[in-house]
Amino acid sequence: MDELNFDLASKLVEPSYIHQARDAHRTRLGRVRRLLSQRRLPERGWDDADVRWMMGQLAAMDSNQFPEQVGVGEREGRVYSSVVRERHWGMAHGMGRAGDVNADQPKAAGASLLVRLAQYLVRDAIRRSGFESCRAVGLLPVATGMALTLCLLALRRQRPGCRRVLWLRVDQKSCLKCVTAADCEPVVVESRLQGDQVVIDREALQRAWDALPAVSDENGTRDTRGVLCVISTTSCFAPRAPDDVVRIAQWCRAHDVPHVINNAYGLQARRCCGRICAASRAGRVDVVVQSFDKNFMVPVGGAVLAARHSDMVQRVLQLYPGRASVAPVADLFITLLQMGADGYAQLLREREHWNGHFRRQVAQVAQRYGERLLHTDDNPISFAMTLQHITESCAVEPAHIGSMLYARRCSGSRAILATERRCIEGIEFVGYGAHVAHYPCAYLSMACAIGITQRDVEVFCERLDAVLRQVVAVQRVSGWNGPLNETGDHVSDADEHG
Amino acid sequence: MDELNFDLASKLVEPSYIHQARDAHRTRLGRVRRLLSQRRLPERGWDDADVRWMMGQLAAMDSNQFPEQVGVGEREGRVYSSVVRERHWGMAHGMGRAGDVNADQPKAAGASLLVRLAQYLVRDAIRRSGFESCRAVGLLPVATGMALTLCLLALRRQRPGCRRVLWLRVDQKSCLKCVTAADCEPVVVESRLQGDQVVIDREALQRAWDALPAVSDENGTRDTRGVLCVISTTSCFAPRAPDDVVRIAQWCRAHDVPHVINNAYGLQARRCCGRICAASRAGRVDVVVQSFDKNFMVPVGGAVLAARHSDMVQRVLQLYPGRASVAPVADLFITLLQMGADGYAQLLREREHWNGHFRRQVAQVAQRYGERLLHTDDNPISFAMTLQHITESCAVEPAHIGSMLYARRCSGSRAILATERRCIEGIEFVGYGAHVAHYPCAYLSMACAIGITQRDVEVFCERLDAVLRQVVAVQRVSGWNGPLNETGDHVSDADEHG
Amino acid sequence: MDELNFDLASKLVEPSYIHQARDAHRTRLGRVRRLLSQRRLPERGWDDADVRWMMGQLAAMDSNQFPEQVGVGEREGRVYSSVVRERHWGMAHGMGRAGDVNADQPKAAGASLLVRLAQYLVRDAIRRSGFESCRAVGLLPVATGMALTLCLLALRRQRPGCRRVLWLRVDQKSCLKCVTAADCEPVVVESRLQGDQVVIDREALQRAWDALPAVSDENGTRDTRGVLCVISTTSCFAPRAPDDVVRIAQWCRAHDVPHVINNAYGLQARRCCGRICAASRAGRVDVVVQSFDKNFMVPVGGAVLAARHSDMVQRVLQLYPGRASVAPVADLFITLLQMGADGYAQLLREREHWNGHFRRQVAQVAQRYGERLLHTDDNPISFAMTLQHITESCAVEPAHIGSMLYARRCSGSRAILATERRCIEGIEFVGYGAHVAHYPCAYLSMACAIGITQRDVEVFCERLDAVLRQVVAVQRVSGWNGPLNETGDHVSDADEHG
Amino acid sequence: MDELNFDLASKLVEPSYIHQARDAHRTRLGRVRRLLSQRRLPERGWDDADVRWMMGQLAAMDSNQFPEQVGVGEREGRVYSSVVRERHWGMAHGMGRAGDVNADQPKAAGASLLVRLAQYLVRDAIRRSGFESCRAVGLLPVATGMALTLCLLALRRQRPGCRRVLWLRVDQKSCLKCVTAADCEPVVVESRLQGDQVVIDREALQRAWDALPAVSDENGTRDTRGVLCVISTTSCFAPRAPDDVVRIAQWCRAHDVPHVINNAYGLQARRCCGRICAASRAGRVDVVVQSFDKNFMVPVGGAVLAARHSDMVQRVLQLYPGRASVAPVADLFITLLQMGADGYAQLLREREHWNGHFRRQVAQVAQRYGERLLHTDDNPISFAMTLQHITESCAVEPAHIGSMLYARRCSGSRAILATERRCIEGIEFVGYGAHVAHYPCAYLSMACAIGITQRDVEVFCERLDAVLRQVVAVQRVSGWNGPLNETGDHVSDADEHG
Repeated sequence: MDELNFDLASKLVEPSYIHQARDAHRTRLGRVRRLLSQRRLPERGWDDADVRWMMGQLAAMDSNQFPEQVGVGEREGRVYSSVVRERHWGMAHGMGRAGDVNADQPKAAGASLLVRLAQYLVRDAIRRSGFESCRAVGLLPVATGMALTLCLLALRRQRPGCRRVLWLRVDQKSCLKCVTAADCEPVVVESRLQGDQVVIDREALQRAWDALPAVSDENGTRDTRGVLCVISTTSCFAPRAPDDVVRIAQWCRAHDVPHVINNAYGLQARRCCGRICAASRAGRVDVVVQSFDKNFMVPVGGAVLAARHSDMVQRVLQLYPGRASVAPVADLFITLLQMGADGYAQLLREREHWNGHFRRQVAQVAQRYGERLLHTDDNPISFAMTLQHITESCAVEPAHIGSMLYARRCSGSRAILATERRCIEGIEFVGYGAHVAHYPCAYLSMACAIGITQRDVEVFCERLDAVLRQVVAVQRVSGWNGPLNETGDHVSDADEHG
Repeated sequence: MDELNFDLASKLVEPSYIHQARDAHRTRLGRVRRLLSQRRLPERGWDDADVRWMMGQLAAMDSNQFPEQVGVGEREGRVYSSVVRERHWGMAHGMGRAGDVNADQPKAAGASLLVRLAQYLVRDAIRRSGFESCRAVGLLPVATGMALTLCLLALRRQRPGCRRVLWLRVDQKSCLKCVTAADCEPVVVESRLQGDQVVIDREALQRAWDALPAVSDENGTRDTRGVLCVISTTSCFAPRAPDDVVRIAQWCRAHDVPHVINNAYGLQARRCCGRICAASRAGRVDVVVQSFDKNFMVPVGGAVLAARHSDMVQRVLQLYPGRASVAPVADLFITLLQMGADGYAQLLREREHWNGHFRRQVAQVAQRYGERLLHTDDNPISFAMTLQHITESCAVEPAHIGSMLYARRCSGSRAILATERRCIEGIEFVGYGAHVAHYPCAYLSMACAIGITQRDVEVFCERLDAVLRQVVAVQRVSGWNGPLNETGDHVSDADEHG
Repeated sequence: MDELNFDLASKLVEPSYIHQARDAHRTRLGRVRRLLSQRRLPERGWDDADVRWMMGQLAAMDSNQFPEQVGVGEREGRVYSSVVRERHWGMAHGMGRAGDVNADQPKAAGASLLVRLAQYLVRDAIRRSGFESCRAVGLLPVATGMALTLCLLALRRQRPGCRRVLWLRVDQKSCLKCVTAADCEPVVVESRLQGDQVVIDREALQRAWDALPAVSDENGTRDTRGVLCVISTTSCFAPRAPDDVVRIAQWCRAHDVPHVINNAYGLQARRCCGRICAASRAGRVDVVVQSFDKNFMVPVGGAVLAARHSDMVQRVLQLYPGRASVAPVADLFITLLQMGADGYAQLLREREHWNGHFRRQVAQVAQRYGERLLHTDDNPISFAMTLQHITESCAVEPAHIGSMLYARRCSGSRAILATERRCIEGIEFVGYGAHVAHYPCAYLSMACAIGITQRDVEVFCERLDAVLRQVVAVQRVSGWNGPLNETGDHVSDADEHG
Repeated sequence: MDELNFDLASKLVEPSYIHQARDAHRTRLGRVRRLLSQRRLPERGWDDADVRWMMGQLAAMDSNQFPEQVGVGEREGRVYSSVVRERHWGMAHGMGRAGDVNADQPKAAGASLLVRLAQYLVRDAIRRSGFESCRAVGLLPVATGMALTLCLLALRRQRPGCRRVLWLRVDQKSCLKCVTAADCEPVVVESRLQGDQVVIDREALQRAWDALPAVSDENGTRDTRGVLCVISTTSCFAPRAPDDVVRIAQWCRAHDVPHVINNAYGLQARRCCGRICAASRAGRVDVVVQSFDKNFMVPVGGAVLAARHSDMVQRVLQLYPGRASVAPVADLFITLLQMGADGYAQLLREREHWNGHFRRQVAQVAQRYGERLLHTDDNPISFAMTLQHITESCAVEPAHIGSMLYARRCSGSRAILATERRCIEGIEFVGYGAHVAHYPCAYLSMACAIGITQRDVEVFCERLDAVLRQVVAVQRVSGWNGPLNETGDHVSDADEHG
């Protein structure tokens, strides 16, 4: 509708009612105006109808939806299925163009605008999460791991001949695979115990560096040791602690080595973001990589690149050859509009609230069975309880406890026994899953992630209690047999993440 | 509903009506049964309601939709926005897992099943298109170019030290970018004119190989010349002809060099697929890469890997680090179910029908202005008409004609002047856009792609006629000025593709 | 989007792409402009995206969707379920207001506009169907029968004391129930055989009138015989022929008796509409009632009132006390936009095409079993074949043949034996179902209704053939037993309609 | 999916994951089982995905969605528009059949089951609201007023010759129109003031009866006075108080007069329902009529009939001639499933909570301007504040205050001046809008209806304050002119309801 059409409508329907509608229409256009000019999360979230209306507006800007359009190219955004067409509002041209996945797409002004706005909204959310100095944001419809691979590939063009990645050990498969996928060579920087926590300090990084043979760069002026970059981690499963990215960033600046931070699900925790912000100021941080779904409650499918400076982000985006699906970015755009600044703030607050509550509840359950929470205060998202006495006195594998929980529709907890030895991407790890060679006891880790509800916390604790009670009871009667067969230990916990 | 619930329903509603419904339900289950057991395109396409029903069934198999599920992991498939949730039927866990984008996802049995079925359906479609010996199919929710990059990265792990890609020139940006993105070095195999067509023969490939310095492989037993693979092309814009993949495959086998075929939009043409099938039998073809959207009328977002043998496809899929969006695969699954075998066959037939018609129509328009169709009979999808006299006598840039068409809502045609010189990814090309150094005249290329309609053909020809008429008229009166300013030549035609 | 927002968008996305989008936006607004000003079916139907866009625009005009709206009334259009909200685009205020179901609703400018436009579109469609002199159209979200009841109630206010309805017999329950529901007394005007057809002529009407006792009207000036109106029928199941509404209208004018035409599914047939048009000119037709779903391929739920003059239509609409669901009208609006003038014309043409084809096909099947088509050429929609020999020689009830077809997923055919005697709404009918007292043979009637496809015709004929073959075969072997038990005769055919 | 298909799926996807999905599937089927067998609101509401899944299941039971169905009737549930089809899940056959809108529909087992379940769910909700003895429930997709008309028409068949309706005055148009629409004659039972409240007592009813001339019934054994029934009201706008239905029911039983209660939006208030329950036990209540949308937060479109005994409800449902739209009932079904027993209880609790809060807030605003709340404690939903001083000292029409609020996006409040004199349906009313002849002062009434939010209450009070402040300010400066022109008094408040 526009002014002229409202006038025409006034000839069909009582003009004063149309007047009100026109007035509301202007409010709505004003809201779009603010979005386009301020480029921030709206103060209050938009409702479903607003968002559908907006998506309809944007989709109508794509050429395949133009009235009277004809197409004689090899890619014309024709959509066969009306079910498919409808779920994408007819948006068919994806994002980007051959030269740059971040470029505006000539055939899709609407999708291009959507991507651009989504970038701004995400940047605003990142800043509100605590990474206040973030200036550049890039959205990639690929997994976090794949985004890291693209970062490494972009770095390879900057540092020809460098293939080594100083990789601060974190026992999630895709964190390592992203290195080998880029045809790079991971150099493991080993962790150590500090109280209950698993940490990696700057000294370990220095030792790893020192152990490498000298390699001079292209110009022969500098010893790169063949190192492409350092990858550190800020979001991880307890008892692994987030890396001290400030000191690592300082080390990287001192050694002129690029620094990539895997902050996969750290946007939801102000502490992670605060550290990254400080590191970006105090040292070298080339790019920080985050997951769409783990931070913003959208379906799996995208990664956010963020940085204080735009050059690295730009280079990664320009690397991607071809156009990509715009669906994950559209999900993100819709979600951020619907959250608004207040909704996002509330989610962050609630997560922190339930975080404390959850730990206390688990501690109570643990106590009942002679177990305790591990002291992992540096990890703002994940925590763990010991499974020491239970697994020892009941002769039960921790993985079985995980399986029992899974069979009771509790997903996401990981029961770890520190003695596992596994070969991942050609590298032998001792105690795989625990992030460190010899963790002193078995444990069960959990996370309190964004969107968790009181129901999640309470039902989980009930079922955990029931599972432990059953384990103890079975042991008393007959040793350990029956109940475990009910599901088999089909869920290899270490794999579940990534 | 199940048998027991139908019984209960019979107590609420006249049993004979419920009987009919139960009967239909069994038919529907039987259809699912056939899908799960035969794993082929259904003979007749499913309608919207069937497909929505099926998607509801699959989505309900994902753990985030289980009744009574609780989650304490860092990724629990929570979806904030009901608009987003609905458009994905609540599917939130993506496809794959950390170790393998093709692996079943423990939290998403439904999405896993969807991916598996989609693979079978696509394989069936590929075979019906003419690549009958296709056995392995992999689906990747990334651009065709990005899929090619992943293929190269997978090959790098097989052929350590090899970085050179023998690249049969085709002037689309992403075809070259996919090489450099993988940190490889493109070695351009140059084309030549054969009548009106631009072709690349095996001799050119041999010459390019011969020009490379000898490099022995790891074991020192073989001279690889540092060549990672050959990339040939079967779908391209006229006057470029598809490569003679049979002979190239033979060459590759003889030289023990991997062979990757870029068949981006070739599935729609039986001739392309027939050649690939023959090449797979007669020589070496490691993997063939296709676009989802260009062949199957879905939104941009995915690529199909296909091969006679599964090893290469498996390696590429296992390379992708992390879970990916399942949305592009879901689009494909829905679309193939809705097409069915008969719908797909009809689309292929119709494309061929309009292909001939379109060429004849354009030839008539061309004749009116002293132009003609180029003889590019080897290209089953794209064709071109000369713009020789018009551009010369009217002193108009071909790009302006492209822009005028674009402004009249005709997308996809490309007006090319053979003299352009451009540097793409560090390589200098003469006559960029024409696939050959000195194409003798300006021309306008078009494609007759799957899903094209009679209306597309006829309206395009009308508008083309109108544009040419206007160009000629303006020239007669005043030289060339006014009308071109109406849009500017903002659409750089060569970039539009990719 | 509006001009200012497009300007702002140009700062985010390449201005020339936004330019194209803005241009398309203007085309779209122009299309809405034509709709609002011409108020006719668009020449070409709108596609899904256009229609969803339009619905979004209209729904946004309703007050419950205004930004910043608050409500303190007893009815504020709050919708609890997001599933419900979405399927109505958030439209919650229904149509009309207490005083008039056709009045604009203050809280729902969008729904009001939708209703108004739908009226115009329906009027255009009715005219295109052949009732060219139609000027007034009213849309009621009630069954055709209920709409007839409302017409009678409106007439009762005009003709106080008159309760008798001269009802031209047609054997569908709701046609009679609509009379008694209005607390009126049906006076059956009996039919007679004319060849194979069942007809009712003006003489029968005159006889029925003559048989009534004289009753003077309020003013004592006129003998109304207590007659409220005549109800005639133009769409009916063969062998009943449509009534000769021209002569009946003339009779009504002569006797000063209101005339209501039940044209339930006659809009799809130009012959029905042509007769009505002629009757409206030549005699008295107060109002013509049609079904939404039977004529326009929408879900069951509404009725169209049409007339040459608006007074009666207005009175009926003003009778309905309260606001009504706007869903059926919205379905109609969407459908007519999507059909467009060309789509509607094509549907009418196709129906006529298949009509001839269907009759020929059934005639062939009939011949195989010694049966024949009844000569019912006056009925443009429905036809019938005899079941004389089959039912007699095989000793099978016609209803069983109907049931067998139904069990084979053939709906809509009615097998009638003329001897049935039933009491409907207190009136005893002989040969109920056949519209006449003693129809000479059993028969099977069918209809060729709008939207029928070649597949319907051909599969039905195959199954009909199979059923008759089976009936004959079973008879030969063993008399008639087994196969009929498979379904029971659960579908009372005469009831299926209404 | 069924057991066999799950087995087949286990050959495609890791069996243990399919095992979990199958397990969840069983839970879901168990939930449907409980719904079908218990026929009550689920304890906890279903989520969107559950409900969509269920709707898909039900819709698949309708014959027009059967695989391989063909149709040769005049009504085959064909839906032209995919947009329309999708929003109804393909349900096209409406509810009921010619003989009975409540009967199972042979072509639509799914819709029939939906209607049946919806009836049970509504009955459960009504009982939970306090009408515990409710046994019969009927759902009609018509306005509340239209449903009342149908009740009267049904009564007319029971009490031939009776046309008079003893109508307890309530000033909403459709409450009166529903009487005249049924061709009945309203006999107004006048109200009186009791403190601030407008009440109608049994004595007034008796007086109205006594004033009527004696009329003996058909059998000549009883004096009906020509009275068809009494219509009383339990939900109304303050200062009108709900009628004392217990005493009226007793009176009706004593006088053998049917009693219809208009409880349009009273289900949301336990006090209304408790009174009805008591009245049904202590006296005669034939049927109670309620609105779908006003009580259950669905779009406008349906009415619920409820009664302790089923006969009257059955008779009304059987009156409706033809099939009706099932859309309003589907909305209700979905909504009640999503609310669940807990959600519904919470909505009722919240409404009561905000009710008290709202009154206190308005009282504070009123006090600021020398006004006060009216004492209308018997009305559990609506309340009012005086506009005495403001309208008198500022010489402003109350309607202008209503308009100003409306223009500020506050809907639902009604500003009433007691002196209005209007003729509605042929009856002259003094003080129309105030429910009584001479209400002593102007006032503004509001309602605290189900679904109201804190934001509604607070924003409304702010804007009310702002409007009153402006009225007072303008008066001080210049008399009353400018601000009122901004909107005109386009909303006639009395009409807004119905």
